[in-house]
Amino acid sequence: MKGPCAVKITAACIQFPVQFAMADANRAVMADLVGSAPQADLLVLPELAVSGYDFPDLATAQSLAESFEEGPTRRLVTALAAERNATLIVGYAEQAPEGLYNSCMLVMPDGAAVNYRKLHLFNREQRWFLPGDKPAPVVDTPAGRIGLLVCFDWFFPEAARSLALRGAQILAQPANLVLPWCQRAMFARSVENRVFTLTANRIGTDTAAGRELCFTGQSQIVSPHGETLAAAPSDAPATITATLDLALADDKTVAGENHLFENRRPEFYPGL
Amino acid sequence: MKGPCAVKITAACIQFPVQFAMADANRAVMADLVGSAPQADLLVLPELAVSGYDFPDLATAQSLAESFEEGPTRRLVTALAAERNATLIVGYAEQAPEGLYNSCMLVMPDGAAVNYRKLHLFNREQRWFLPGDKPAPVVDTPAGRIGLLVCFDWFFPEAARSLALRGAQILAQPANLVLPWCQRAMFARSVENRVFTLTANRIGTDTAAGRELCFTGQSQIVSPHGETLAAAPSDAPATITATLDLALADDKTVAGENHLFENRRPEFYPGL
Repeated sequence: MKGPCAVKITAACIQFPVQFAMADANRAVMADLVGSAPQADLLVLPELAVSGYDFPDLATAQSLAESFEEGPTRRLVTALAAERNATLIVGYAEQAPEGLYNSCMLVMPDGAAVNYRKLHLFNREQRWFLPGDKPAPVVDTPAGRIGLLVCFDWFFPEAARSLALRGAQILAQPANLVLPWCQRAMFARSVENRVFTLTANRIGTDTAAGRELCFTGQSQIVSPHGETLAAAPSDAPATITATLDLALADDKTVAGENHLFENRRPEFYPGL
Repeated sequence: MKGPCAVKITAACIQFPVQFAMADANRAVMADLVGSAPQADLLVLPELAVSGYDFPDLATAQSLAESFEEGPTRRLVTALAAERNATLIVGYAEQAPEGLYNSCMLVMPDGAAVNYRKLHLFNREQRWFLPGDKPAPVVDTPAGRIGLLVCFDWFFPEAARSLALRGAQILAQPANLVLPWCQRAMFARSVENRVFTLTANRIGTDTAAGRELCFTGQSQIVSPHGETLAAAPSDAPATITATLDLALADDKTVAGENHLFENRRPEFYPGL
C-alpha cells in the first residue's frame, strides 16, 4: 500500500444517475461502478449518492438517512475500499442523534473513516439538514492529503482556502449540481490554491418533490495549474480518471519570487 | 451628475500598449483614448499605465514615479475626469516619502481622489515597490461603490472577498497581466462575490530589463452572474464598454433560500 507521501496517484470521479429513494438499488450501482472502475487510489462519488437529492419532506429525508458509524452505506464503502485498495468518498444523508446532516464519508483501504457534514446547505436542503458543525477535514490518506467539500461549499472561496492552507493537496467534492457555475469556477479554486480539484457530480432528474430538478454532470478533474485533466459529459454515466502528481500541489511558488500562501496579507482583509 | 445610488451605469476598460519609460507619450495616449471613448460613467485604464512595467533597476523605477498628491498624472486624470464627467482609475508608480508603491488612483468628476497601493506585489516588482500598507478601498462614486484591485491581487480570493463584503458593487482591476489565468478566474471572482469585475489589461512588450515581457490584453467586463459583457483581443488596443445594472450586485440571494454573505461560516474556516 502506498504511504501518505506517495507522489503520484490515480484518481477517479464516478458520475451516475442516482434513483430517488432507491437506496438498495443505488448502493448496488455504486458497487458495480466501483468494482468495474480502472484501478485507482482514490474514487470520488456524488453527493447523496444513496438517497437521491430532492426530498419532498422531512419524513422522506429521515427514512433515507443512516448513521455514519454503522449504516449500510458505511459497511458497503468499507468493503469496497478494502477490495479495491482505494480511498473512497461518498455522499449520503446522515442520521445523527440531533438530526440529519448532508454528509460525505471518506473511507480508506484499512477501514479508517472520516465524516464531513456539509457546512453550506443549498436552498431547500436547509429544511431537512442541519448545517455542519465542524470545519471541513483535511485527511492524510494513502492517496494524498485530501480536503473535503460538498457541492455548494464551492461557492465560498473561504472553504477551499481553509482546506488548502491546512495542507490539502486534493479537494474532493461530491456534488449534486444544478446551477451553471461550479465547474467553471473550480478552475479558480485549483489555481488560486494550487491544488487538484475533483468534482464528482450526478446526472439525471429528481421529481419526487413535485418539480423536475436536473443535475448537470460534467464531473471533472482539474490540476493545480488549471488544466482540465479529465471531464465527463453532462448527460451520461462516466468514470473519469487522471494521474495526479501531488508534488505540483505542494509547490506554492509563482513566477520564481512569489508564494501563494506566504504572500497573503491577512491583516488587510477586513470583513473576512 | 448621477449620485452614488444610480442603478445603471456605463463602464469602460481601455487597453493599450504602454511604451516603457515614455511617460509624456503615454499620458498623451491616455488623454486621447479617454477623450475619444464613448460616454461612460467609469473608465478603467491599465496598471503602471504611465511608466511601463518591467523596470531594469530601482533608479529607473524612481525616475518614473510621481506623487499621488501633485504629480502630472494626477493633474491629467483630474482634468479628464472633469472633462468627461466620469470616474477614472489609472495605475501609476507612486513616489512616497518612504519609497515607491505600485498604486492606482481613482479620481471622480469633482476631483475627489482615492489612492490604492497594491497589496500583493508580483515577482520582480518586490525589488522596487513597497507592499501596500492599507486595505484596498471601497469608494462611493457617482458610478457606484467601487473596490480596487491591481493585477496580481486577483490571485488572492481574500482581497476581492473583503471588498465585496464591504459593499463593493464593482471590482475595478488595472492590470499588466503576463500569466495565463486571471481572465478565466475573474469569472469566479464575479460569481462568488456577485459583483461586476472590470479588468483593464495592457498589451505590448517591455524589453528594458533585458527580457521580453509580453502582456496578454483580453481586458474584460464580467457580470455578477458570470456573463462576459465585453472582451478585448489579446493583441490590439481596444476600448470595451458595458452597461452595468448595479442592482444585480446588491442582490446576494441564490436560488431563493441562500444568501452568499449571510451563509458564510467564518468560525469554520481555520487558517484564514
